[in-house]
Amino acid sequence: MASNSFGTIFRITTWGESHGKALGVVIDGCPAGLELCEKDIDQELQKRAPGQSSFVSSRKEPDHAEILSGVFEGRTTGCPISIIVFNRDANSSSYEPIKHLLRPGHATFTYLKKYGLFDYRGGGRSSGRETVCRVAAGAVAKKLLKDENIDLIAYVKEVGGISAPSPSFEEFDKVREQTLTSPIFCPDKKASDEICTKIAEVKAAGDSLGGIIEAVATHVPAGLGDPIYEKLEMKLAAAMLSIPASKGFEIGSGFEAARMQGSSHNDLFTKDSRDAVITASNFAGGTLGGISTGMPLIWRVAFKPTSSIKLTQSTLDVDGNHCQDLELPESSRHDPCLVIRAAIVVEAMGALVLADALLMNRLAKL
Amino acid sequence: MASNSFGTIFRITTWGESHGKALGVVIDGCPAGLELCEKDIDQELQKRAPGQSSFVSSRKEPDHAEILSGVFEGRTTGCPISIIVFNRDANSSSYEPIKHLLRPGHATFTYLKKYGLFDYRGGGRSSGRETVCRVAAGAVAKKLLKDENIDLIAYVKEVGGISAPSPSFEEFDKVREQTLTSPIFCPDKKASDEICTKIAEVKAAGDSLGGIIEAVATHVPAGLGDPIYEKLEMKLAAAMLSIPASKGFEIGSGFEAARMQGSSHNDLFTKDSRDAVITASNFAGGTLGGISTGMPLIWRVAFKPTSSIKLTQSTLDVDGNHCQDLELPESSRHDPCLVIRAAIVVEAMGALVLADALLMNRLAKL
Amino acid sequence: MASNSFGTIFRITTWGESHGKALGVVIDGCPAGLELCEKDIDQELQKRAPGQSSFVSSRKEPDHAEILSGVFEGRTTGCPISIIVFNRDANSSSYEPIKHLLRPGHATFTYLKKYGLFDYRGGGRSSGRETVCRVAAGAVAKKLLKDENIDLIAYVKEVGGISAPSPSFEEFDKVREQTLTSPIFCPDKKASDEICTKIAEVKAAGDSLGGIIEAVATHVPAGLGDPIYEKLEMKLAAAMLSIPASKGFEIGSGFEAARMQGSSHNDLFTKDSRDAVITASNFAGGTLGGISTGMPLIWRVAFKPTSSIKLTQSTLDVDGNHCQDLELPESSRHDPCLVIRAAIVVEAMGALVLADALLMNRLAKL
Amino acid sequence: MASNSFGTIFRITTWGESHGKALGVVIDGCPAGLELCEKDIDQELQKRAPGQSSFVSSRKEPDHAEILSGVFEGRTTGCPISIIVFNRDANSSSYEPIKHLLRPGHATFTYLKKYGLFDYRGGGRSSGRETVCRVAAGAVAKKLLKDENIDLIAYVKEVGGISAPSPSFEEFDKVREQTLTSPIFCPDKKASDEICTKIAEVKAAGDSLGGIIEAVATHVPAGLGDPIYEKLEMKLAAAMLSIPASKGFEIGSGFEAARMQGSSHNDLFTKDSRDAVITASNFAGGTLGGISTGMPLIWRVAFKPTSSIKLTQSTLDVDGNHCQDLELPESSRHDPCLVIRAAIVVEAMGALVLADALLMNRLAKL
Repeated sequence: MASNSFGTIFRITTWGESHGKALGVVIDGCPAGLELCEKDIDQELQKRAPGQSSFVSSRKEPDHAEILSGVFEGRTTGCPISIIVFNRDANSSSYEPIKHLLRPGHATFTYLKKYGLFDYRGGGRSSGRETVCRVAAGAVAKKLLKDENIDLIAYVKEVGGISAPSPSFEEFDKVREQTLTSPIFCPDKKASDEICTKIAEVKAAGDSLGGIIEAVATHVPAGLGDPIYEKLEMKLAAAMLSIPASKGFEIGSGFEAARMQGSSHNDLFTKDSRDAVITASNFAGGTLGGISTGMPLIWRVAFKPTSSIKLTQSTLDVDGNHCQDLELPESSRHDPCLVIRAAIVVEAMGALVLADALLMNRLAKL
Repeated sequence: MASNSFGTIFRITTWGESHGKALGVVIDGCPAGLELCEKDIDQELQKRAPGQSSFVSSRKEPDHAEILSGVFEGRTTGCPISIIVFNRDANSSSYEPIKHLLRPGHATFTYLKKYGLFDYRGGGRSSGRETVCRVAAGAVAKKLLKDENIDLIAYVKEVGGISAPSPSFEEFDKVREQTLTSPIFCPDKKASDEICTKIAEVKAAGDSLGGIIEAVATHVPAGLGDPIYEKLEMKLAAAMLSIPASKGFEIGSGFEAARMQGSSHNDLFTKDSRDAVITASNFAGGTLGGISTGMPLIWRVAFKPTSSIKLTQSTLDVDGNHCQDLELPESSRHDPCLVIRAAIVVEAMGALVLADALLMNRLAKL
Repeated sequence: MASNSFGTIFRITTWGESHGKALGVVIDGCPAGLELCEKDIDQELQKRAPGQSSFVSSRKEPDHAEILSGVFEGRTTGCPISIIVFNRDANSSSYEPIKHLLRPGHATFTYLKKYGLFDYRGGGRSSGRETVCRVAAGAVAKKLLKDENIDLIAYVKEVGGISAPSPSFEEFDKVREQTLTSPIFCPDKKASDEICTKIAEVKAAGDSLGGIIEAVATHVPAGLGDPIYEKLEMKLAAAMLSIPASKGFEIGSGFEAARMQGSSHNDLFTKDSRDAVITASNFAGGTLGGISTGMPLIWRVAFKPTSSIKLTQSTLDVDGNHCQDLELPESSRHDPCLVIRAAIVVEAMGALVLADALLMNRLAKL
Repeated sequence: MASNSFGTIFRITTWGESHGKALGVVIDGCPAGLELCEKDIDQELQKRAPGQSSFVSSRKEPDHAEILSGVFEGRTTGCPISIIVFNRDANSSSYEPIKHLLRPGHATFTYLKKYGLFDYRGGGRSSGRETVCRVAAGAVAKKLLKDENIDLIAYVKEVGGISAPSPSFEEFDKVREQTLTSPIFCPDKKASDEICTKIAEVKAAGDSLGGIIEAVATHVPAGLGDPIYEKLEMKLAAAMLSIPASKGFEIGSGFEAARMQGSSHNDLFTKDSRDAVITASNFAGGTLGGISTGMPLIWRVAFKPTSSIKLTQSTLDVDGNHCQDLELPESSRHDPCLVIRAAIVVEAMGALVLADALLMNRLAKL
């Protein structure tokens, strides 16, 4: 079943395995006339890149995006944009010894049941490596958003029980700067430091951590999103739950809404100093009836702790035999807390949803 | 933008407004040969029906599903199944006095911004009334699931801060019975009683409550769901966030995963007494890599408190003028806690996702 | 497999069987703000209606389109437009005696092979009756085209070997008038008369005729259609071959192009008296690279003779037994030449393709 | 608008320009377990390759398909198959002198109107070069068909008014051999020779020819294709009209049906010597109601003469100025009769339609 495409108008199709020759994405439906070059993409890939700090995997991926089509003389042509990222640092040999084992928390078992075979090298298609394509495509989507003056950022909100306060978005650029200067994409200095310490501890113990990413988009025009089965929050939820290791999504008040009463949850319509319609609060998180209100979009995504850990675990092999001492090879490389790198993926997927919604909104009226 | 369809193979298209002549759904892609009659659908509509207790809206909707096509001599033919439900108790006149006002928490404002006009009668297309079509289609999907021996139920997990313990699923039929005998679809007797009391209080105060629905599917075969952008949890998340008033989704450990470590979160593979592969725990909630593991699927959906309340609120009118005293007409009818009726909608949407995944899974292998 | 939808943005889903309670169409993606009433649709259904002359089926279908949703105070709302047409003159009893027989040229055999069962009453879903939904949806599409000043007509070009000259389109309204005044939708008076005579002869003999429909759209703006797999001619070809009994499609020079040389087939670019870019000839038929040029779109569709004839034929029954004397019941009603009523269906499907392309074209550029 | 994908279950997305770095195709939805290697694809590309005789373009394209993903240890994995073909012999400089001119019969003008800019190098995306991706994907589809014992071939039926008799398909392998040994893919020796002579003449005169391709598939099981808007002939028509330079499509009796009567056109059901249901004739061309009958599928595609000719033509430039003497550069390379190379593209597109229909048919029944 064709399941590697996302989006309706601004539509991406990704391909590639963790340890194959390359991964790539085809973007179909990007309007003609957008300025685009490889550097635009590479600077996003850079943010996702591991090996930058001790908090993420040490795999060296000097990822470079090559644009193979769809751009002519510096602008998109309306034709499909093919972007390829070659795998340069893949080392499959370390997976040989464990290739017959079902790795806990991994997709080996389910792929085997579904397809009858599995590319065991580094997780194959189910690897988080696929997100490099999302980030590359997201870089293009972000250029479309920028053109419309939409600001978007995702950052670490919580890791290992340490929660950072949500930043104020009156100075969006400052939040972005604070986020990018944190080694773990957390705009709050104090929480960032504490989380770094926590990750170091857990990493030393061979274990891993989960966490929560929060994302905010401002200057989103009212009217984006389509009712019923193309609601903006529905598309965001789908986008977020498509990210490997994600376990939950909430928008605005989210699960907290379950404990509130209507009189306090209802965001009352009023006007701001420039006479524009706003709501006095934003428990909705920026949408009503699936359509953007013009208030900031705000959502959160929960991620489980990285499944690959250095501790010994029991499991089965592909033939159903028990194995008491699954240990990942010394040489294998993993993030002790994948949620950090997930921030840039959340941002990219959010950008894809918004770019698509922006284009779809051209179709609403006569 | 065409946004009223859901599903890939087992695909529904819904239409109709709260106060129009009728609402309906076309199911396209249901395999031929399934036994189906109107009673199958009516008994599901019955569960969703308001007016049954004081905890839900007093609107009388003796909803009856008429099958207009796609069934011949008691079986589906492979052709589209058109189901229509006529509106019999719609009373639009009560909305006349407030038709120019932006109702807090409602979609009036966003539809106006998007489309330039709005059917104000009872929320028009944005009304929860549309979910009658989902429940009707879900009834058909459930028959497909039953054919495959899959059990599915959704129930009230939490309302107004009162949380019910999750039931044990060793006796699925018992849970179903307990759920259906509770006036609020809560299988735990104690919590059910407390929640009923709470709703009565809040209703008397003219206010409303939010809550959480939990859903569980057992005997789901391993292999359902497609990787990357058709993941089972992604489709569930999309389905759930398409339900009016939903604010969040989580699967398995959900947001709690963010506070766990890999060594405790990883579900270890082992075998059960019948030598089948299972996992010792089920923090994953029934999927790995977007594909079902064979363990129970378990997910939760957060709903905001009903936006329609009997208390006076301030707002704007469609021209931007302030209005300090929006009051819903005496005659208007609303649920003090829509989460109760949402249970059956969550169940229906879950059935649609699973039926679609079951069919898609026929395509995975040679 | 969901196969009852057509179009990408302006998307229709049809349902219903020849002898069921009703047939209908849901139009999703029609922009908000279009004026629409039931009369707009009924006047198109009127053109398709049989029983008007001796040249078409004598089945009386006083078809009336009821709009059940998507229109509020005379304008489309952006929500799905559900249109229903009840079956009033269906008489299934005449099909009883032959329900076990494979009717030559009909889909009984193939539906049985595919679905394992078949609604034999009047052809069930495979009946030409389904086209009533296309014509209803086409009526809405035509209103969109009219808004953009696009003129579209389809007419009988050839029947039983009698070919009419293509009209000049300098006076489009005149062609339309001539077409609608011919009992067989043929704008050329002489050909129309000859064809009428021919049909009468063949009908008397219990036999049937095929023919060719030609369609022309003028004032189509340059730029409609998307390259590669959404080419305008591709969408037209698909639309036309979806019409029951169609056997071929050609655009512009069509099959005649196979016998031409490049030097004469190439349409040379030049300017008209108002300094607009045109081509000196129009062998292309209005597109280049799948995108409209601004020249008239012109295409033709071949239809086979009606499969239902009054003559005795040999066949098999559903169990594979030979039957030497299949005769349709005296009371069954069929067109001796379905191509006549096909004209309005070709026009409707053309309108659907163009409306969709018009909307899609909003997405091409920044 | 996303327009570079084709197919529903077995779905391809192509990308790349004539003179870009590379072209490629992503196949999504190919079932796991199919044996596949690069040689399977290269041998199909070989058939399409120009430079093999004087009857096709002299551009040297030693096309080689590199499989970048989706195949592991010689079998498809169910994950997307990315195939890339690098451009090795592209020479853009020859297009510099004419880059401001609207080339007759080409898409320059329409792309400009649609997108506001155009990659003029060798036709950019609108070039026939894109068909290399279709042939590559078709090679994979053919392996699926072979697995099901379906035979498929396309060949030159007519060029420059010289028509070849349709071969008998009792010895399918012989037809294939005769087709592949003809320098112009025409299985009839006499017609092949005459056509070769004709092409040589027209080429010498700097002109070009059109023609007709016929395709036949045998052993197609009954039941393929879905009714109404996924009819097998509809999908074939769409596939064929998506091929550059195609002007028409017909199935079975095609346009000839328009001149026939029902009594002779109806294919009567009977049984063959092995007691299988067949029809005594096959004017239908292998489908009824959009679903395959089990009889051979037979269709034809008309192609216009190559638009690029060596003769001087008048045209406009992009600013609307007249140019009386457009001449293609001496170094530019074109087929005097593109229909020859189109045969393999017709075959590939037919294979894609059939592979998709085969998979879709798994969904028809319980």
